[in-house]
Amino acid sequence: MWKPDREADKPIYRQIVEQIERRIALGELPPGSALPSERKLAEQLGVNRSTIVQAYEELRASGLIESRTGSGTRVCRNKWGLVPRSAPNWNAYVEGGTFLPNLPFLRRIRDSIRSGEPFVNFASGELAADLSPNDVIRRLMAEQPFQEPLGYGDPAGYAPLRAAIASFLQERRGMVATDESILVTSGSQQSLYLIAQCLLSPGDAIAVENPSYGYSLPMFQSAGLRLFGLPQDERGVKPDDIEALYRRHRIRMVFLNPNYQNPTGIVLDPSRRLELLACCERLGIPIVEDDPFGLTSIDGYPPPPLKALDRNGTVLYVGSLSKIAASGFRIGWMVAPHSVVRRLADARQQMDFGLSVFPQWIAAHFLNSRELEYHLARLRDSLRLRRNLLAEALRDELADEIGFDLPAGGLNLWCSVNEPVHDYALLENGIKNGVLFVPGSVYGSDSGFVRFTYAKPAVEEIGPGVRKFAAALRQTRAGR
Amino acid sequence: MWKPDREADKPIYRQIVEQIERRIALGELPPGSALPSERKLAEQLGVNRSTIVQAYEELRASGLIESRTGSGTRVCRNKWGLVPRSAPNWNAYVEGGTFLPNLPFLRRIRDSIRSGEPFVNFASGELAADLSPNDVIRRLMAEQPFQEPLGYGDPAGYAPLRAAIASFLQERRGMVATDESILVTSGSQQSLYLIAQCLLSPGDAIAVENPSYGYSLPMFQSAGLRLFGLPQDERGVKPDDIEALYRRHRIRMVFLNPNYQNPTGIVLDPSRRLELLACCERLGIPIVEDDPFGLTSIDGYPPPPLKALDRNGTVLYVGSLSKIAASGFRIGWMVAPHSVVRRLADARQQMDFGLSVFPQWIAAHFLNSRELEYHLARLRDSLRLRRNLLAEALRDELADEIGFDLPAGGLNLWCSVNEPVHDYALLENGIKNGVLFVPGSVYGSDSGFVRFTYAKPAVEEIGPGVRKFAAALRQTRAGR
Repeated sequence: MWKPDREADKPIYRQIVEQIERRIALGELPPGSALPSERKLAEQLGVNRSTIVQAYEELRASGLIESRTGSGTRVCRNKWGLVPRSAPNWNAYVEGGTFLPNLPFLRRIRDSIRSGEPFVNFASGELAADLSPNDVIRRLMAEQPFQEPLGYGDPAGYAPLRAAIASFLQERRGMVATDESILVTSGSQQSLYLIAQCLLSPGDAIAVENPSYGYSLPMFQSAGLRLFGLPQDERGVKPDDIEALYRRHRIRMVFLNPNYQNPTGIVLDPSRRLELLACCERLGIPIVEDDPFGLTSIDGYPPPPLKALDRNGTVLYVGSLSKIAASGFRIGWMVAPHSVVRRLADARQQMDFGLSVFPQWIAAHFLNSRELEYHLARLRDSLRLRRNLLAEALRDELADEIGFDLPAGGLNLWCSVNEPVHDYALLENGIKNGVLFVPGSVYGSDSGFVRFTYAKPAVEEIGPGVRKFAAALRQTRAGR
Repeated sequence: MWKPDREADKPIYRQIVEQIERRIALGELPPGSALPSERKLAEQLGVNRSTIVQAYEELRASGLIESRTGSGTRVCRNKWGLVPRSAPNWNAYVEGGTFLPNLPFLRRIRDSIRSGEPFVNFASGELAADLSPNDVIRRLMAEQPFQEPLGYGDPAGYAPLRAAIASFLQERRGMVATDESILVTSGSQQSLYLIAQCLLSPGDAIAVENPSYGYSLPMFQSAGLRLFGLPQDERGVKPDDIEALYRRHRIRMVFLNPNYQNPTGIVLDPSRRLELLACCERLGIPIVEDDPFGLTSIDGYPPPPLKALDRNGTVLYVGSLSKIAASGFRIGWMVAPHSVVRRLADARQQMDFGLSVFPQWIAAHFLNSRELEYHLARLRDSLRLRRNLLAEALRDELADEIGFDLPAGGLNLWCSVNEPVHDYALLENGIKNGVLFVPGSVYGSDSGFVRFTYAKPAVEEIGPGVRKFAAALRQTRAGR
């Protein structure tokens, strides 16, 4: 075991500080882990207690550890995000402190999934294995001879894929996007990360829909951004609220998810789209339009994207293959002014030297294949079936206890609980009953909401899963 | 054209500041681009010149623009790294200011390559297309049925690939690495980025070999790290120098590239490896061992990696397929204590949600294939041929004007110029003559050194490329 060196020039308390810093940095003391009491550590190391008091004080001052009456001294939880200590506004990232307490929910859900126990998974926002085009991809890989250069490619992405994405967006989303305006990314997460890190600064205020996945992204915290919520009615967010936020908080960017919004399923009204665009143009605030679900429509089709209406380069459009093909693809795209594409591509070089040619090559073939049409039609049919099964089961089991609007597309059903219960207790009872879902407060809403993803569980699991949820809800009501 | 709003509450100078900030943020005004003179902008916007003076002053104060007598006002060049404004020690990242002036060289080289003109490329540190195992990969993709799940995978990497890397490292590098100790990354760049962002803080001091690729990585700047150089003799760096740097600057990590070091080609002596490890263990400083070239030996084999000698988890070992198979793979690995693997994997989730399954699947098959042995042998033979051709041509053309040691492996030959010329002039003359190489000062050395990569140009280009270089050197001597 490590002991301080009494012969060294360095004071003993300082040696102890550095030893603990090292153990934290190497992950031996993960966030939240308990440190020994001052008395006990003094004994272990054979030093005076006052030396430990001094060492802990210094570690507390640098924000690495925290002490609370009753629970002792622990490694701080918020020190392990990306770039945590470099963001000067680290503690200023969320309005009203509704953010941090939610993250433990996501950790709890993830740990449950990793445990390998057989949960009905209404929590993971991704497609079930049988909804992904595995056959098409297997055939593409077997039949198309791979003959691409294997050197470092264009930092903005593999040229044939940029071209395929441009035609895909033109044909299916009515957008005029040139190859040069497309940055290939590893998915929406990387697109948003690049925007947050390169176009915004710590302390900047941004507007997001409320509720919204924005509240669940530690990435926004790590970038030190301050999130302000835009209320939504059944037609989406309102331009006036953006204007008001701009006046009060100088918001620097607006993040919108206009089609089958995550988690509410709301579709932003066509006339509101025009008004929002005009408003943001006037204020000079860029809009990030995140559109993962535009092609997962179930009933009818969504209106044209804001980017299709954008004449002034106000909109950065973000999309991906994750929700329409497979999340394991790790292929996404951003449509942006050429100068932004180049800047973000150069910045990404520092992170990963760009993307592998293999998924880009497969994605280009997939987007150009005749089977894409059939895949998307089959996906929509299958999502309709799952959504209907979920809605029926919820009505059957919990008619008087919950409420929801049927989503017209996307992967999620947003459900309100008539007499709200405590989110944490509900989730714990769900886990006990073998069902996973995401409590609404993860998305910044009040308690009493739940997001169900119907794309992930198997068709035959949906009914039983809802019954497990109903049991969990009743147990929670009964105070168990 | 944009005009300030005279009715607004906001002062006009402030509106102008924000408009220019926006244009910079959107990339319309890229780094280095010129702004109009104060007089001219005042005319364009129809405001008093003093208003523009005030606006420019504020932009200068925030570090976004800079003005110099003679060259007017320009957007700062150092504002576009990743996370630039979040790093509080942005200006403190390099000792003695030798860093920033070099970056323009790399930009100049990259732009020349992008121009599409036919250069003999001794600059890009990657393998020529005919050295990559394209045939093997094409066959793997055609013959192995792809049947993997396409969901979000384990954030630490695709399990069969982690297993393949563990056996690969055990068999070929003598390392005992368990699957759990391996983090799959998209290459050494991502490994180093994760280390710099998650295990170090802005202002931290690190030690790197001098000269070293460390000086050429904007990634280290962006993380706000202070670089201190370790001198090298023909046996590599010396433990005493690490100890001295620790006492003077409290260095928190040591980055070493012990095999065929980039750019010098030096192999760190076996006994020095043991001493360095003991020294860093005693001081409690982690070593990052970057080993891209360990399997590109030409004459003999390098000693065992430090990681193979590490008994206390002091070493983070970083490797990749880039220099032994193809840089377009974007597959690399880190071997680290399990807790570090988990932390960095979780942090990466924020950046990109992990890696695509496709390159991981191909890499696993490639590492397990019987053709790997043959590929590596062929690669070594081909590198030997290219190195010898380069060395002969340099001796033939410039015997009395340059000096070099024959590298025993790797991709680079490090060459000193007997009567040093100005790096910038030499590079420009090289470009005029149609040859690219990297001036040594990019790696932090004095002027009068050049790095030639012999792996990238075609075999038949090597002789003519050296003749072009000789011409450029003579022109530079002649003051042209």
